[in-house]
Amino acid sequence: MNKNSIGREIPVSGVELFGGPFQKTPYLPRESGIPSHNRNGKIVDSLEQAIINSGLKDGMTISFHHHFRGGDKVLNTVMAIIADMGIKDLTIAPSSLLDHHSPVIEHVKNGVISKIYTSGMRGEIGQFISEGGMEEPVIIHSHGGRARMIESGELTIDVAFLGASTSDIFGNANGQSGKTRCGSLGYAKVDSAHATHTILLTEQITGFPNIPNSIPQDHVNSIVVLDEIGDSSKISQGAVRMTKNPQELLIARQTARVIEHSGFFKDGFSFQTGSGGSSLAVARFLKDIMDRHNVKGGVALGGITTPLVQLHEEGYFPKLMDTQSFDGDAVESIARNPDHLEISASQYASLHTGSCSVNMLDFVVLSALEVDTDFNVNVMTGSDGVLRGASGGHCDTAAGANVTILVMPLVRGRIPCVVDAVNTVVTPGSTVDVLVTDQGIAVNPARKELQERLRAAGLPVVSIEYLHERAISITGKPQPIDYNDRVVALVQYRDGTIIDVVRQVAS
Amino acid sequence: MNKNSIGREIPVSGVELFGGPFQKTPYLPRESGIPSHNRNGKIVDSLEQAIINSGLKDGMTISFHHHFRGGDKVLNTVMAIIADMGIKDLTIAPSSLLDHHSPVIEHVKNGVISKIYTSGMRGEIGQFISEGGMEEPVIIHSHGGRARMIESGELTIDVAFLGASTSDIFGNANGQSGKTRCGSLGYAKVDSAHATHTILLTEQITGFPNIPNSIPQDHVNSIVVLDEIGDSSKISQGAVRMTKNPQELLIARQTARVIEHSGFFKDGFSFQTGSGGSSLAVARFLKDIMDRHNVKGGVALGGITTPLVQLHEEGYFPKLMDTQSFDGDAVESIARNPDHLEISASQYASLHTGSCSVNMLDFVVLSALEVDTDFNVNVMTGSDGVLRGASGGHCDTAAGANVTILVMPLVRGRIPCVVDAVNTVVTPGSTVDVLVTDQGIAVNPARKELQERLRAAGLPVVSIEYLHERAISITGKPQPIDYNDRVVALVQYRDGTIIDVVRQVAS
Repeated sequence: MNKNSIGREIPVSGVELFGGPFQKTPYLPRESGIPSHNRNGKIVDSLEQAIINSGLKDGMTISFHHHFRGGDKVLNTVMAIIADMGIKDLTIAPSSLLDHHSPVIEHVKNGVISKIYTSGMRGEIGQFISEGGMEEPVIIHSHGGRARMIESGELTIDVAFLGASTSDIFGNANGQSGKTRCGSLGYAKVDSAHATHTILLTEQITGFPNIPNSIPQDHVNSIVVLDEIGDSSKISQGAVRMTKNPQELLIARQTARVIEHSGFFKDGFSFQTGSGGSSLAVARFLKDIMDRHNVKGGVALGGITTPLVQLHEEGYFPKLMDTQSFDGDAVESIARNPDHLEISASQYASLHTGSCSVNMLDFVVLSALEVDTDFNVNVMTGSDGVLRGASGGHCDTAAGANVTILVMPLVRGRIPCVVDAVNTVVTPGSTVDVLVTDQGIAVNPARKELQERLRAAGLPVVSIEYLHERAISITGKPQPIDYNDRVVALVQYRDGTIIDVVRQVAS
Repeated sequence: MNKNSIGREIPVSGVELFGGPFQKTPYLPRESGIPSHNRNGKIVDSLEQAIINSGLKDGMTISFHHHFRGGDKVLNTVMAIIADMGIKDLTIAPSSLLDHHSPVIEHVKNGVISKIYTSGMRGEIGQFISEGGMEEPVIIHSHGGRARMIESGELTIDVAFLGASTSDIFGNANGQSGKTRCGSLGYAKVDSAHATHTILLTEQITGFPNIPNSIPQDHVNSIVVLDEIGDSSKISQGAVRMTKNPQELLIARQTARVIEHSGFFKDGFSFQTGSGGSSLAVARFLKDIMDRHNVKGGVALGGITTPLVQLHEEGYFPKLMDTQSFDGDAVESIARNPDHLEISASQYASLHTGSCSVNMLDFVVLSALEVDTDFNVNVMTGSDGVLRGASGGHCDTAAGANVTILVMPLVRGRIPCVVDAVNTVVTPGSTVDVLVTDQGIAVNPARKELQERLRAAGLPVVSIEYLHERAISITGKPQPIDYNDRVVALVQYRDGTIIDVVRQVAS
């Protein structure tokens, strides 16, 4: 008869017999000599040891978050150690890549990295990929699309490497206290919830429980304490500076008027705006029209910036829902204001369970590189065809909002922003309602009622063809980009379907 | 060449082509006519329709939570509809079963339910199972063990049916507002995070966002509004009444003295106590010793009750970590007190990522049905061998705490509580440190230092063999239980190994 370690007969097959209470928790016994402050066994002395413990092997998938933006030190540090350890053929899935992540290029060349998922890329990495530097096409996803892929199991993360400024010994972690604060950990929350193994990189161990636990303890397998996970000066740069560019101010003022006369401007309206010059300035003019009509908003969503924090603290938007804190003010606010709520990228924009916060948006104000006469939007490739942008929440919010407003100048330098056909479609034109430029406002012909309302309000509504012709009349017709046939990146729509590809630029 | 719906050439195989922005979100188009307040498509008119939408089929696994305790109406309502729909051969995985869930018996007899996972069972269901009513043995798990099974994929929940008093239209739900409040949704949080499909049953749709979102929107697939998900009078029964039983008060007073002299009673100590008479009363005497020594606690953990709420509000325990609100005071407190924190059963006690809050415990005070001279504990079967208890967090906290204290009378009626060998082992004796009875205190011989400290403090420390003999001298030696060979339940230890089995009682 089967007897277990305390002598009970277990007359059943196909089960594992009890082998003592601490058989699977060697850090727990009262006699183990491990000090009680580490009775969880999660704190590991070195990053290399943590990687060994994680079981990371050739061919696996690892992930990172980009909440530290230009100040991130996690990705390069981890990749250097992995390369030293001789691990090859990895898929990396950072929520986005920034300029200073260019050591990635060497890791690709050396076979350490063989595939990349990312929302965006710029600088040397974009150039390298666009010139055909990788065998496998890069997968470009939206913020919502990334969460959906991870939740659905379409993208399995074997090991997530997540930086957070503070953690307790169990892994309850946040980006709101300590030194290198980034505010919301909206992208990281998704990784930690779904990765097979999560390694938390932190600078400071706090008392238990560390609250808020943006990343909860049960999503963390091991903890490594580092001197620096990021460069604070490149993350929390205080308040963003408001634009003084007259063209941007004009666009912002007109955008506020579009909102005012759209028919959706009423008490409780919800709002998102990007961090570009015009987008940011919209918040300022929005306040004027809210005052004039005595209208109060509801939720302001998305990447949170100084103007939204101000509007929140002055009572214009009772709730901020923050998936990424874009500046130092937002970082301070999320720690201070109880109704400045941290949400995951999934809650923000994933379709996985059929809903997401972007569906509640009345208005989203979005920047872009170019738009075409079908209102299709490119935020991914430059006029030379090279990857230098990010999908971000662009197509997510455009699909969810009642009124999606694109803001951009008609021309940038000698480059037209309204074109016949965009290089790369990230956001389909059928989800874009209004284009506000410095030379007039175009409304998607599918939104006739909206068009009539804006005309009736005396706004300079023109056709998008008119704007295109006017742009070309200034810049001349741009030369077609010289592409090869080879595909270097696939652009996913938020639902995982392929909305476009990016081809190799001819060298 | 492959062209997608907006005419872009996608020269890549093995991918799905973009088919329009609303192809997978038919509730989203601006033209769809769906009112914007339900642009998420989650609210379903009837429970039956929600079950159809979930794809529930014969042989699948469904789950429930028991936060409503004796007032739960979800399980019986859902099971009646499923039975009517003709679905068979289901595994049910409620976090626990209570007396009034006895309709489960008919569903077993009719083939609707073929397997059960639960922390506990009482009344008619326990009798039915113990008499061999089911083909498959029931799996008895701890609260932490259940979370671990779900997180590891050992137990896959196809459809979770989770009641919460309020929700917004996206599924952000809690048990802290509305009518049928239950406070913490600690068990439900785990189910919603891991179930393939989650149906939320609620009584009230609130504005967006419903905060706190104990169950976040991205864990909810559909929402059904019902008149009543529970009977409030059986959930939030106000403050629990403090025992006046002199025997229980004696045990509680001695337990407080054990804590005082254990060597672990110092500033910041953490504490959990059960909801039995003696356990609850410990909190009262604890306050006295904390005052006398001017010691302040840290975290009070677990099922939260009136005495702990009082100690929290008076500053004795700065943090409450609540996986289940046991009474009306706890329900009110979690809504009111920012440092009364809601934690999931995983954060409470799961080993899945190698840590859990129980590892931080200095003291846990636990009741039991019987203990044997090896300190093994039975909280599962009565003296007649019939299932009438719950594993709960017993073995989880016993393993995690520095000092695990069992409180019980030496005899109950004519039944000895300290026995030669318990009927059923739920918690192994090597994780139990002290037994406090009304007739003396026994310390696990493995904790010699602790034993010496308690002796030195003048506490009536005796051997457990002495307590056993004394019990038997009062009650006489109990008759052995007349069991068959057939196994009716497997008792899992928190790590998933089998610590004991329960056999069919002879009829």
